[in-house]
Amino acid sequence: MLFDGDDTLWHNEPLFAEMTSRFRELLSPYHSRTWIDERLFETEVRNLRYYGYGIKSYVLSMIETATELTEGRITGTEIREILEFGKEMLQAPVRLLDHVEDTVAQLREAFPLVLVTKGDLFDQESKIARSGLGDMFAAVEIVTDKDVPTYQALASRNGINLSRSVMVGDSLRSDILPVLQAGGNAIHIPYGTAWQHESVPDSALIGYEYLTAESIREVPELVDGLVAK
Amino acid sequence: MLFDGDDTLWHNEPLFAEMTSRFRELLSPYHSRTWIDERLFETEVRNLRYYGYGIKSYVLSMIETATELTEGRITGTEIREILEFGKEMLQAPVRLLDHVEDTVAQLREAFPLVLVTKGDLFDQESKIARSGLGDMFAAVEIVTDKDVPTYQALASRNGINLSRSVMVGDSLRSDILPVLQAGGNAIHIPYGTAWQHESVPDSALIGYEYLTAESIREVPELVDGLVAK
Repeated sequence: MLFDGDDTLWHNEPLFAEMTSRFRELLSPYHSRTWIDERLFETEVRNLRYYGYGIKSYVLSMIETATELTEGRITGTEIREILEFGKEMLQAPVRLLDHVEDTVAQLREAFPLVLVTKGDLFDQESKIARSGLGDMFAAVEIVTDKDVPTYQALASRNGINLSRSVMVGDSLRSDILPVLQAGGNAIHIPYGTAWQHESVPDSALIGYEYLTAESIREVPELVDGLVAK
Repeated sequence: MLFDGDDTLWHNEPLFAEMTSRFRELLSPYHSRTWIDERLFETEVRNLRYYGYGIKSYVLSMIETATELTEGRITGTEIREILEFGKEMLQAPVRLLDHVEDTVAQLREAFPLVLVTKGDLFDQESKIARSGLGDMFAAVEIVTDKDVPTYQALASRNGINLSRSVMVGDSLRSDILPVLQAGGNAIHIPYGTAWQHESVPDSALIGYEYLTAESIREVPELVDGLVAK
């Protein structure tokens, strides 16, 4: 069985939301909040091809947005505040979602579990360590992008037959759709506030079958159902 | 056989040296060049525990140093220049060292080759792709730190017996000493200008045996010698 980490096992999005809100406050003397949000999102997406995902990339994009939005008038002191936001994010305690610890402990008795997480290697390793869940997983795969070839490669590396395995995650774009496209099974646990970039058009999912759960607590029963099929 | 990437297969240090020199020029109206260098190095090392290695970490440390050294007087325009330095580094062409292509092609006929490289996942994957060497390696291991447990774990993951394998690299601290401590063999190819942080005190190497080469071209013969032992 495969598990996503961010916003599936531990809370991640609220940290970004909190930082974005502080960034917005910092720049509010210069521009409207909506305009700041839009420019930041635009910068983040534009920079993905340079920086990839993760907190360091996010901080670099916040700094770039700040210099752009202020036409260079941003002060060194304000830039320092953004750097401090980033360091705080990088060290924030890892809060597990409800029922994660018990459910993961239960599932690992029945299946080898692989953690598949996207983003910055250093940051993800540190989060896994702080989560206390590291030992629950037979393997940890930290990847730059969760696309079909990535899932195929990591399945083959770990001796996993995707058609007989299940991926559990909160992102349709990264955890569900590519796994289905690679012939696997998937359980979607929506997180509520997903990052805009992680959404997919409804039409992309036409013809695919996957399960949805409200909480990780439902996963063991859903998996039993899948296995019995 | 295990290979390091940065400054063993492709040039890396000159890129950092070039960027440091541009950073020094940018801040030269504020401080002496030596002082700038010292503060940057200090910031980089202090930030390793937040950021890990890699270009994004380096850019964040340059920005932090710039805001510190100018007591906040740095301008948004100057910060943008630093961000541009970073993007340039992230996209710079990957230049192979002399004889790398031929030698690696020759060695892979005899041994499965594993690339072991440290730093930022996104950046390293991109460099490997741009190097054109990706297909030469049976496996690619991108790690956050090259210490004894890391080498032991990756050896076991790849079915490698370290005592019968050889690591080739330019850093005594990251490529040679930990491999020897883990019971492996090593060939050191000094690069010339190593990053200060990558050095080890001479005494750390007392009692260890490893080979030194001037160029990767000498590696096949040295390996034959090791195997014949």
